[in-house]
Amino acid sequence: MATVEELKLRIRELENELIKCKQQRSQDSVPNSVFRPRIEKMSAEVVDSNPYSRLMALKRMGIVEDYEKIRSFAVAVVGVGGVGSVTAEMLTRCGIGKLLLFDYDKVELANMNRLFFQPHQAGLSKVEAAEHTLRNINPDVTFETHNYNITTVDNFTHFMERISNGGLQEGKSVDLVLSCVDNFEARMAINTACNELGQTWMESGVSENAVSGHIQLIVPGETACFACAPPLVVAANIDEKTLKRDGVCAASLPTTMGVVAGILVQNVLKYLLGFGTVSYYLGYNAMQDFFPTMIMKANPQCDDRHCRGQQGEYAKREAARPKQEVVEEKEEEVVHEENEWGIELVSEISEAELQDASGPKPDLPEGITVAYTIPNKDGEVNSEETVEETNQSLEELMAQMKNL
Amino acid sequence: MATVEELKLRIRELENELIKCKQQRSQDSVPNSVFRPRIEKMSAEVVDSNPYSRLMALKRMGIVEDYEKIRSFAVAVVGVGGVGSVTAEMLTRCGIGKLLLFDYDKVELANMNRLFFQPHQAGLSKVEAAEHTLRNINPDVTFETHNYNITTVDNFTHFMERISNGGLQEGKSVDLVLSCVDNFEARMAINTACNELGQTWMESGVSENAVSGHIQLIVPGETACFACAPPLVVAANIDEKTLKRDGVCAASLPTTMGVVAGILVQNVLKYLLGFGTVSYYLGYNAMQDFFPTMIMKANPQCDDRHCRGQQGEYAKREAARPKQEVVEEKEEEVVHEENEWGIELVSEISEAELQDASGPKPDLPEGITVAYTIPNKDGEVNSEETVEETNQSLEELMAQMKNL
Repeated sequence: MATVEELKLRIRELENELIKCKQQRSQDSVPNSVFRPRIEKMSAEVVDSNPYSRLMALKRMGIVEDYEKIRSFAVAVVGVGGVGSVTAEMLTRCGIGKLLLFDYDKVELANMNRLFFQPHQAGLSKVEAAEHTLRNINPDVTFETHNYNITTVDNFTHFMERISNGGLQEGKSVDLVLSCVDNFEARMAINTACNELGQTWMESGVSENAVSGHIQLIVPGETACFACAPPLVVAANIDEKTLKRDGVCAASLPTTMGVVAGILVQNVLKYLLGFGTVSYYLGYNAMQDFFPTMIMKANPQCDDRHCRGQQGEYAKREAARPKQEVVEEKEEEVVHEENEWGIELVSEISEAELQDASGPKPDLPEGITVAYTIPNKDGEVNSEETVEETNQSLEELMAQMKNL
Repeated sequence: MATVEELKLRIRELENELIKCKQQRSQDSVPNSVFRPRIEKMSAEVVDSNPYSRLMALKRMGIVEDYEKIRSFAVAVVGVGGVGSVTAEMLTRCGIGKLLLFDYDKVELANMNRLFFQPHQAGLSKVEAAEHTLRNINPDVTFETHNYNITTVDNFTHFMERISNGGLQEGKSVDLVLSCVDNFEARMAINTACNELGQTWMESGVSENAVSGHIQLIVPGETACFACAPPLVVAANIDEKTLKRDGVCAASLPTTMGVVAGILVQNVLKYLLGFGTVSYYLGYNAMQDFFPTMIMKANPQCDDRHCRGQQGEYAKREAARPKQEVVEEKEEEVVHEENEWGIELVSEISEAELQDASGPKPDLPEGITVAYTIPNKDGEVNSEETVEETNQSLEELMAQMKNL
């Protein structure tokens, strides 16, 4: 039987061990609690302890007029994979007001060849793991996460509702939707939702061979939506047939995904904070380091009736605008620079597909090609057909289209 | 006085609390122990648990012939800040054989507007914090860290020694040195070391206003070194006078730094694994999304005698090469594409400085300009002079230079 003294000694030992354990826990790399208190007001003060000093310096440098405005915006990131997770991290570190994250996938060790997720997160849902990391990085950001697939009927309805009401103030719509998904169905779902809601969004993509990618700004009614024309990809002079399809183990690189996330969020910042020129389409070909740009207007024969409706609204707004404003807008208009890259194009679509496809074909600059054509009216994507390849040049295809 | 029963109850409570604390510690996000065992041989097997499946898929996609070769390379990253830390993370996730990290700085909250470091690491040395995170991400990589400033005499000697002997096998040189530093002195130290050792390296930089950056490949004796010509920067049409200088609170963005790290490591992969075309100089102008490229030969009048020596060696090697090889090399030669961007240049240097500067001036394509001129022979950088600005066009300056 232990004496009182022995019991007291044991208590002291346990107390010390517990203190040690708690100390070690607090020293562990990522604390469960938030590391720093929330910051009420962004400061430009140049001290090591100010996480916003290098961002607020953008004002002094004459780049951004009102950087604090970043806190008034809510951005939805759909797909928290190789591009989406880095996109979310960049926005978090920039101090965005609110992030809404949508994904239904789990973190796997097979994702470790891209930035952001770490091996110890394997098995966690991507949105949950991302929120944990991001909240630690910047507790000033408001997070809302949805661990579901937006393409099912119920989830799609909820997704639409959150885009409409999930802004910084509940009931206000989000300011921008970013598509960082890896499949056609999810892109089409975002397209459908944003057309119906008149919601501006940006699309991003990386090729299956990991060496090209792109971003695209879609303003419903103004620029081509995803149903207006075949999705565009960067010609890589390599067998590159589609945006990502299910069931294929695609290659991926942290470099390409980092560049695509970087140019995506850079254009988000330019769009939200009003500096520089927002690119409508910017491609990245990693093999040759070339970056084609272009702009494509909405298609009056678009299959999506909401797109056609938005085009009508846009035409009305344009007509109603006083001339003064039109001039101002002109000054800020995106300059499209057609570059002669001398890159030979390999077309990704067959002649038959081009004939089947709906709507007029875009006038593509060198270096950009279509990923595949719009599926026929039955709505089924026939992957057997879309992966067919020809050796025709884009010029030849364009000439054929004009003869149709 | 407590009874024995009360003491025993307290012991049970403490024991439970201790167990709970230990459990929580093991559940904390980043374990102190390595999460996954080392992987002896890279596998292409398509399973969720294989961290290399998406990289090995580059072989099946026809991009890289021998991806496993990545494990045979050692890369030194000098400067583990906004660009260097992401560079190191990308290489770690790609499964590079060995990383050598050099930095003397500590993590601060003021760094939180860039990727990689997290608030709980504030106060730790950058190399130590980086190694901890990177080892958790990929325990297959060998790390060697040096927490010192390479520009002091003793450290510079040690830095040279590690570049010469710190390869995958001790005694072998590293395969590539990456400059991710933020000041002129450190760049010059790397330049001096690499010229003496004949070590190929890549330079990277981000402007003080955070909206432009560049990467550059320097092959001693072949392409222009840092002493051959004034460092180049991307013209941003904005007051942008130098690469980073001490004592200025520069602006920075995770986007620009992510893009620069992405294009840097992409070119490292292309260089090491032999795919695509390695860019000699690739710039990034975030305001307009343009990416100028160029190539600049070594300067026979370079101030660095080791550079001139390497030029002699290079000329000998070229002369000794059988013709067959020369033809092969030609095919792989980097294609320089001059692009007409229509961007107006603002010169960063004064006429007087141009006259003072040593060596011939590079024939710069539109969109690229010099950061400042080479300091006069006394070796002092006169920042008063170098930040002067003129409104002359580059064409005017070039015309003046030709008249000298």
